Amino acid sequence: MGAFPADSVGLVTPRKIVIDQALALDCGRTLPQHELVIETYGTLNAKASNAILICHALSGDHHAAGYSSETDKKPGWWDNCIGPGKPIDTNRFFVVSLNNLGGCRGSTGPSTINAETGEPWGPDFPLLTVRDWVRSQALLADQLGIRQWAAVVGGSLGGMQVMQWTIDLPDRIRNAIVIAAAPKISAQNIAFNEIARQAILSDPEFHGGRFYNHDVIPSRGLKLARMLGHITYLSDAAMRAKFGRELKAATPSFNYDVEFEVESYLRHQGQAFVDRFDANTYLIMTKALDYFDPAREFGDDLSTAFRQAKAKFLVVAFTSDWRFSPARSREIVKSLVSAGRDVSYALIDSQLGHDDFLMPLPQYHRVLSSYLARITEEET
Amino acid sequence: MGAFPADSVGLVTPRKIVIDQALALDCGRTLPQHELVIETYGTLNAKASNAILICHALSGDHHAAGYSSETDKKPGWWDNCIGPGKPIDTNRFFVVSLNNLGGCRGSTGPSTINAETGEPWGPDFPLLTVRDWVRSQALLADQLGIRQWAAVVGGSLGGMQVMQWTIDLPDRIRNAIVIAAAPKISAQNIAFNEIARQAILSDPEFHGGRFYNHDVIPSRGLKLARMLGHITYLSDAAMRAKFGRELKAATPSFNYDVEFEVESYLRHQGQAFVDRFDANTYLIMTKALDYFDPAREFGDDLSTAFRQAKAKFLVVAFTSDWRFSPARSREIVKSLVSAGRDVSYALIDSQLGHDDFLMPLPQYHRVLSSYLARITEEET
Repeated sequence: MGAFPADSVGLVTPRKIVIDQALALDCGRTLPQHELVIETYGTLNAKASNAILICHALSGDHHAAGYSSETDKKPGWWDNCIGPGKPIDTNRFFVVSLNNLGGCRGSTGPSTINAETGEPWGPDFPLLTVRDWVRSQALLADQLGIRQWAAVVGGSLGGMQVMQWTIDLPDRIRNAIVIAAAPKISAQNIAFNEIARQAILSDPEFHGGRFYNHDVIPSRGLKLARMLGHITYLSDAAMRAKFGRELKAATPSFNYDVEFEVESYLRHQGQAFVDRFDANTYLIMTKALDYFDPAREFGDDLSTAFRQAKAKFLVVAFTSDWRFSPARSREIVKSLVSAGRDVSYALIDSQLGHDDFLMPLPQYHRVLSSYLARITEEET
Repeated sequence: MGAFPADSVGLVTPRKIVIDQALALDCGRTLPQHELVIETYGTLNAKASNAILICHALSGDHHAAGYSSETDKKPGWWDNCIGPGKPIDTNRFFVVSLNNLGGCRGSTGPSTINAETGEPWGPDFPLLTVRDWVRSQALLADQLGIRQWAAVVGGSLGGMQVMQWTIDLPDRIRNAIVIAAAPKISAQNIAFNEIARQAILSDPEFHGGRFYNHDVIPSRGLKLARMLGHITYLSDAAMRAKFGRELKAATPSFNYDVEFEVESYLRHQGQAFVDRFDANTYLIMTKALDYFDPAREFGDDLSTAFRQAKAKFLVVAFTSDWRFSPARSREIVKSLVSAGRDVSYALIDSQLGHDDFLMPLPQYHRVLSSYLARITEEET
């Protein structure tokens, strides 16, 4: 037990929450029941007013902090930010992290069994929206006895969920921490997603999404999708700093084997992803990204959308992020200001690109710490 | 005949040049003979001192200007720039445009017949470098009786060939016009190329490059590669301006059919490319891009490399180009200045991205026109 660092939440065990209420989805279909796998860190206070929800991004899951076993070498994906004394301080807050509906880490999704057929859902699993996730997360909050989150926090696609919370369920969120996000993705972002999807959909081993029944996975397509994602998570400068354009050998090989370090990195990242992620979930996640557009039902005016909100906002962007650039975060801030909302904005000097929202950059963590330190635990 | 615009070179007919000299390649192999398909516009003067070579980019070919038939609706790929009275003025210059070795529009390449086997070369065709192309183009110049080009002109990968000419054959080029290029591609660029290659190589219908014998083409992979290329040719802003994030229908379809205009555009571009381009050529072109690094044999010092050069330089970059950004062109300019070379630099205000080097932007064409107007027809 003493093996874990002192500022770690230590050993964590996920649990499965069965949500028996029907969930009506934006696509028009209804899930009569669904399950969400969660982890929690810290202790819920008597008034249930100190809860923070962590919303994950495209490939994230419930395992945000701590270690899954005594011998686990790698902690959760946001362990540098969540723990005793860390920016999201588990001495003070009760932190809830979930695998979203549609995910592939135990929550109901395309790779789980459809009770109606006894087979994996596969392509029959409904496409989801960020609104659907907020609805599902609200049912989760009900089940946990949390009427109002002290804060909802998320980066990238997670930040979109945070914004949607403030608009759809304004009384249930006191603080919204929106990191490296955008009010909606750009045509270029959609284009990248579309290529990733086509890579998966056109893989002969995708079998129309029913690859589970064929004992194969569409590994070529999923690998390409992940490799492409990686380019957009890193800045050009970061790639240059990390790999330069170093040849692995002294001279070119004049064949299609790995020649440059960056190729080796990408192939490795792609393969590692294939081993842990589900292709149908990847498709669902990219579509949710494409669909996200909270201004749409408010006459395409984001500030009108944010007039629904009651939360206080912290918006964080990173200088080197070209996937969701600071300009996109400023659009969010501008709309919040127009809507008369209470908003703080931090632009963090960074090198790595979009992935910096996962990094323990001191300036970034100070911003989060000082914002969270001012959060009252009183319900509003 | 009167159907063509007055400033067009009109009807053009490609011709095949057989080059019987052996060509030693950087990979160590030698081609005993090769053929290049070319078009020429304008008239070579008696001293053969008014010739301009056009070097094409990744997916280009010899058909740069004019019309291939009386009923041809679309002129060559750079028709807006080449013709009587146009920036590359065929009233004054004799313009040579070729399909590079390794191409797929008639020049010797992977889809042509290997005399040794009587079958298409396929994967047995050697990987090429920009230096190899310069060697091949020099043999072409010999055959055409051109000792020294008045100018060599190219954008993107074409610009790299221009730079290599100045370093490898300094006495044979008086002016170098390097457009939207880079001294070597970045790790991010290599990463994009690698994903494009993996898309093709992993397509089951690639058959190790011998798809010709199977009566199929690796269309899925080639389509993905082209879609990905397109994202990098256009700026985020251009994509936004062109497609916004408009849904094709009033509401989302919640399936994987085309939903956004940008998806429709990309799929169309991908399919059109599959119908006209060869997958092995695409692989060869991307590798040549990756390998290009003229500073490498000069102690990684580009200015030392450029000390070989005798040409005058015009370097042109475009503000909205993120594939080969203005910063990369400034690296070229800086090295040329350090090397004591005569260099002009123009940064063109643009919106579209990398593709702007093909567009008739007035500022851009004025820069080309005025530079070319000052070119003397005298050999040096």
